[in-house]
Amino acid sequence: VGKQLDFDYLAKASSAATWSRTNGNGAQKVAFLGELGTFSHKACIQYFGEKMAVEFKPSFRAIFEAVKSGEVKYGVVPLENSLSGSIHENYDLLLEYDLTIVGEITLRIIHHLIGRPGATFEKIRRVASAEPAVQQCRQFLECYPDWQIVTVNATASAVREISCCEDQSFAAIGSKEAADLYGMAVIEAGIETDPRNFTRFAVIAAEPGDKSECKKSSLVYSVGNQPGALFETLKIFQENKINLVKLESRPIHGRPWQYMFYADLEADVAAERFAPILAALHSKTEFLKILGRY
Amino acid sequence: VGKQLDFDYLAKASSAATWSRTNGNGAQKVAFLGELGTFSHKACIQYFGEKMAVEFKPSFRAIFEAVKSGEVKYGVVPLENSLSGSIHENYDLLLEYDLTIVGEITLRIIHHLIGRPGATFEKIRRVASAEPAVQQCRQFLECYPDWQIVTVNATASAVREISCCEDQSFAAIGSKEAADLYGMAVIEAGIETDPRNFTRFAVIAAEPGDKSECKKSSLVYSVGNQPGALFETLKIFQENKINLVKLESRPIHGRPWQYMFYADLEADVAAERFAPILAALHSKTEFLKILGRY
Repeated sequence: VGKQLDFDYLAKASSAATWSRTNGNGAQKVAFLGELGTFSHKACIQYFGEKMAVEFKPSFRAIFEAVKSGEVKYGVVPLENSLSGSIHENYDLLLEYDLTIVGEITLRIIHHLIGRPGATFEKIRRVASAEPAVQQCRQFLECYPDWQIVTVNATASAVREISCCEDQSFAAIGSKEAADLYGMAVIEAGIETDPRNFTRFAVIAAEPGDKSECKKSSLVYSVGNQPGALFETLKIFQENKINLVKLESRPIHGRPWQYMFYADLEADVAAERFAPILAALHSKTEFLKILGRY
Repeated sequence: VGKQLDFDYLAKASSAATWSRTNGNGAQKVAFLGELGTFSHKACIQYFGEKMAVEFKPSFRAIFEAVKSGEVKYGVVPLENSLSGSIHENYDLLLEYDLTIVGEITLRIIHHLIGRPGATFEKIRRVASAEPAVQQCRQFLECYPDWQIVTVNATASAVREISCCEDQSFAAIGSKEAADLYGMAVIEAGIETDPRNFTRFAVIAAEPGDKSECKKSSLVYSVGNQPGALFETLKIFQENKINLVKLESRPIHGRPWQYMFYADLEADVAAERFAPILAALHSKTEFLKILGRY
């Protein structure tokens, strides 16, 4: 099945312009994780502007489902943070669902320690946030080993939670926007381990975008178990002067210590010059799927 | 500094036999995460036998600290699971601390849904476990979206917690050993997403082991930001017929979208034939550190 997927993709790409006309504006909505004031929400605004209709979802899978069913036209999901690394669940979902990446967003992430108005450092006993935010603030949190860490779905949910309970020992890690939204106070600003903290989000859709030329493409593939098999695929990129900007491996279920490789390329896989490269990749892979061009 | 580290390593390796004699048996203990009945504990027994003295630690960092300070001779930390992927915190700690991998352990992981005696499926409202266990049972847990998931440090801690509170709606995910240890009941056995579920652990120590020949070695390195730089290093392995069994990337703090590469090789980096390979790697890397041979 996998072997055919990328040809399906190229056929779809050519009819994408038609598709977006016939499907009208009914589903012109974008889904993201959590609620208002999350970094995903900020990423949506950066990409689509303030006027795009939004839809909150409780999990990444629910976002993929909403895009698949046509409930929304787009989803925005984080793929990678420059401090804490990849968000693997979304890599796994990109493989599982037959959706496609149509855009990417890079967002500067600044985390604040947020408390109820009047809360002070000394009173804090418990801190709520999302797991990636906790990782990005690990150096700061290691200075307070007695604080209990509570992980929730999204940073803005943590800020909303502390706004609901009248307990000044309960703090959150989240954005300035979330603190303002819920009338909470910033106790300490910029607590991420390094200020050069960025998250890269993917914009996903059911059908390829209608851009005629793209700068980047994403692929996922597996190779056989023989030594040097991964190298053979990278050699193809190298020989064709295709810049590989990211290579991520994820385990394959049921085949211990074998991996799916996710590759981000500075190339348009739908370009004519890419056709022989794709053919060469086919001959060196067991499974190959184009995840999108953008 | 990095450029010198591997030569330091090779010098240390040759004096390792002397070191282990002069340091006696006082610190002949192994530290692992959590408490009795965790999978880390099981890995310790598999490697060192039942008689080795053990020391529980509340975090992976605490294990690295205990080995560094000489409080214990060895630490056992999980590196990778065949369903959920790498445990990145330990990759980051291997880079940060100047310790070395002296052995590896592969353990079959079977997860059980565990409750208080008399607990039934229908009563469950809340499930506690460690984050990797939750990931490895994701397919099972997705069938019960109403269950609240509580993450704790180690699977055995979750089982102990449910044994302490008299609430039949509170269940845990953990090992058969932990259920037996705390007199709890297995409600559903083998709930991991795929039965071919293994975790690979590293045995870490302050000084290299005294094995004269090793089958595997681990390295970490960074390359420049120019296209093809990673490829150049992989080419060295390929040309020298060195089998690369794992390649993992982790972000470098303060240098967004640049990565440290962790490579596991089927080769002994202390072998004479490896010297020119190491020299070639030096010329193609910005930073290079040997993490161990085993």
